[in-house]
Amino acid sequence: MKKIRMGVIGLGKRGTSVMKDVILGFDDVDVVALCDSYEDRVDAANAIVKEQRRHDAEIRTTDYREVLKDTTLDAVYVATAWETHIVIAIAAMRAGIPVAMEVGGACDLRECNELVAAYEETGTPIMLMENCCFGADELMATAMVRDGVFGEIVHCHGAYGHDLREEITTGGVKRHYRLRHYSRRNCENYPTHELGPIARLLNINRGNRMVSLTSVASKAAGIKAYLDKHNYEMDESLRGVEFAQGDIVTTIIKCAGGQTITLTLDTTLPRFYGREFTVRGTEGFYEADTGVVFLDGMEEGFDTLEMYKKYLGNNEQYKKDYMPDMWLNITEEQRIKGHGGIDYFEFKAFFECLKENKPMPIDVYDAAAWMCITCLSEASCAMGGQPMAIPDFTNGAWVGRKPEDVMPLGKKS
Amino acid sequence: MKKIRMGVIGLGKRGTSVMKDVILGFDDVDVVALCDSYEDRVDAANAIVKEQRRHDAEIRTTDYREVLKDTTLDAVYVATAWETHIVIAIAAMRAGIPVAMEVGGACDLRECNELVAAYEETGTPIMLMENCCFGADELMATAMVRDGVFGEIVHCHGAYGHDLREEITTGGVKRHYRLRHYSRRNCENYPTHELGPIARLLNINRGNRMVSLTSVASKAAGIKAYLDKHNYEMDESLRGVEFAQGDIVTTIIKCAGGQTITLTLDTTLPRFYGREFTVRGTEGFYEADTGVVFLDGMEEGFDTLEMYKKYLGNNEQYKKDYMPDMWLNITEEQRIKGHGGIDYFEFKAFFECLKENKPMPIDVYDAAAWMCITCLSEASCAMGGQPMAIPDFTNGAWVGRKPEDVMPLGKKS
Repeated sequence: MKKIRMGVIGLGKRGTSVMKDVILGFDDVDVVALCDSYEDRVDAANAIVKEQRRHDAEIRTTDYREVLKDTTLDAVYVATAWETHIVIAIAAMRAGIPVAMEVGGACDLRECNELVAAYEETGTPIMLMENCCFGADELMATAMVRDGVFGEIVHCHGAYGHDLREEITTGGVKRHYRLRHYSRRNCENYPTHELGPIARLLNINRGNRMVSLTSVASKAAGIKAYLDKHNYEMDESLRGVEFAQGDIVTTIIKCAGGQTITLTLDTTLPRFYGREFTVRGTEGFYEADTGVVFLDGMEEGFDTLEMYKKYLGNNEQYKKDYMPDMWLNITEEQRIKGHGGIDYFEFKAFFECLKENKPMPIDVYDAAAWMCITCLSEASCAMGGQPMAIPDFTNGAWVGRKPEDVMPLGKKS
Repeated sequence: MKKIRMGVIGLGKRGTSVMKDVILGFDDVDVVALCDSYEDRVDAANAIVKEQRRHDAEIRTTDYREVLKDTTLDAVYVATAWETHIVIAIAAMRAGIPVAMEVGGACDLRECNELVAAYEETGTPIMLMENCCFGADELMATAMVRDGVFGEIVHCHGAYGHDLREEITTGGVKRHYRLRHYSRRNCENYPTHELGPIARLLNINRGNRMVSLTSVASKAAGIKAYLDKHNYEMDESLRGVEFAQGDIVTTIIKCAGGQTITLTLDTTLPRFYGREFTVRGTEGFYEADTGVVFLDGMEEGFDTLEMYKKYLGNNEQYKKDYMPDMWLNITEEQRIKGHGGIDYFEFKAFFECLKENKPMPIDVYDAAAWMCITCLSEASCAMGGQPMAIPDFTNGAWVGRKPEDVMPLGKKS
């Protein structure tokens, strides 16, 4: 069977590392086109291709339209700046080239609507590359939910808790798009890592949907304090720059099924990494960051710290029954292939669906629904927490669509 | 010096236990008036007084107005159902009797305004008995904030996380007011345990104020599932009763100083107790439930569970420098006097201010601002998360009032 001919558009830190460690890790996939606005990034990526595959990429360009002219491409991976994911994905679909679209938030509802329209008109496969949907904890928790362990689910919580102060403040010298977004916008700018797995768990677009949200941002103090503390040594030109992005943005989403989802954007204050993935049901809860599974009837107490000491990491005992075998049997090679395995499983799913012409596990409706949270949050923050209606991108189809996970999940026999 | 002559209005579980373990624990305080809508509760409380003090209470009544006729009373403690705290407090102030008012949420803005007016017109002392403002963790964290340990504070979070399913569902047979509130209302019904300490930390009404909130409630599934599971054995009459109160209510408050406060009401799903008291600043964070103090520059990592294992309970090392001595030197007797000492310290402060004619540490403006969150949250939930303006009960005085803690706090020399 012939190799998948892949183009990579966007060769920053993420695009380059995924190309190198994940995509080129698949023997039946080749990288034949490379594109970035910066020519030196294209050259550097080409050097990696040449080292690993002993050939140059056929197309090397700073204009993504040059890539999309090659109709022999089997797919493109889009990992550009946030604001161009959708416009490039639409152009690719219209050129008939299947798309693996990296995550990010939408800048306006219009692009979400156009994304869905482009898919519906062309039928070109597209997958939102939300790797956390393939996370070990998230899949285990979803399997437990499917088995009824937590009873009826009424609330989920997640966060993007990641101290990005260095990445943002070196964004000028490192040409990172975060810098311009953080200085000018104020919103839940990166919802999908936490929302993706939660939305799938709650069957969003598949019998349920998100109907409204409200978002409130704290003041923006973290980046300024960080720059002051380091006396602007990372980028002298940032002196006097104002940052619009609040340090903590809290978003509450209400679902048609009555569940609430809370999201926290938390990227400009000191903290250790955490996605705070939490599932609350009538029979118990799961909190991934502390690894606590608590079920109705387990010992309670008023000394909360003692409770955490008792239950910390007790999710371990559920792995055998509920964690997908691919995670229990993960090889060292798979781990190395990107983010501890999560990117490997994600791209494996993409390539399999592409080859077998099967529906993508994370589809265009997921993409539009999850990415629109950013622009709706931006509007809500600007209006003091005004609730915003979340569009139904399925145009009513959600009421009849069957629940489906990114892979079969439940209690293993 | 003569004893403080105290009346207790409201003799349910809380009123009776505070009277028995806390108030009667002070040798210079006597309980001379007892009131509850239920006569048997008055009789039971009187038996306790008689056992401990060898006399009957002088006034024993089901009508609180009978208590307030006794102008020789030095104070009343009001621990009735939520919906009557303020009306009784106002009547007491107008009768010139100082008030220790138990916590709860307001049912309407009108009663908050009237509470403030009654205080301003009469000058009768009133203290909101928010015991968590005297909590060891909360005071230590506030002392660390005053010392600048966490830098500029941008966000705080708290919860009332307490599985009350048994208390609520036995509320019919035990005549507990929660039952009627949970069946008919949907709101952040109990904000002050978490909001009180946070509001003081953020200098609310003292150079800062809360300007708006938005609240969204999940569906109400927890109580119904609990009753079904137990086949209504706690109260057969609850079959078919609908509960309006959402299981998880999330509230976001925005402050004039740009800080956000998030509150979670979480009382009808399985969980262990926790108030989730969290302080986020430009130099670090404190999370009381897990006892984690994390400061800028400490080791980070992507394995969140490993981080929790590393830092769990590391607040211990800050106690010597920041925890008030009264907590470090607490005696077993003080611990026994209610909720591990928290109620003892709270009532000690009330009695001292009363005797020395000093301003109460938690005043009428605190009471109105914190309690109004309930009715504003109710309105916001009803309107899909509509932001609601929070009144300025100080009528502008907050811009000039000096920050003040419930006791002097900071790094000890």
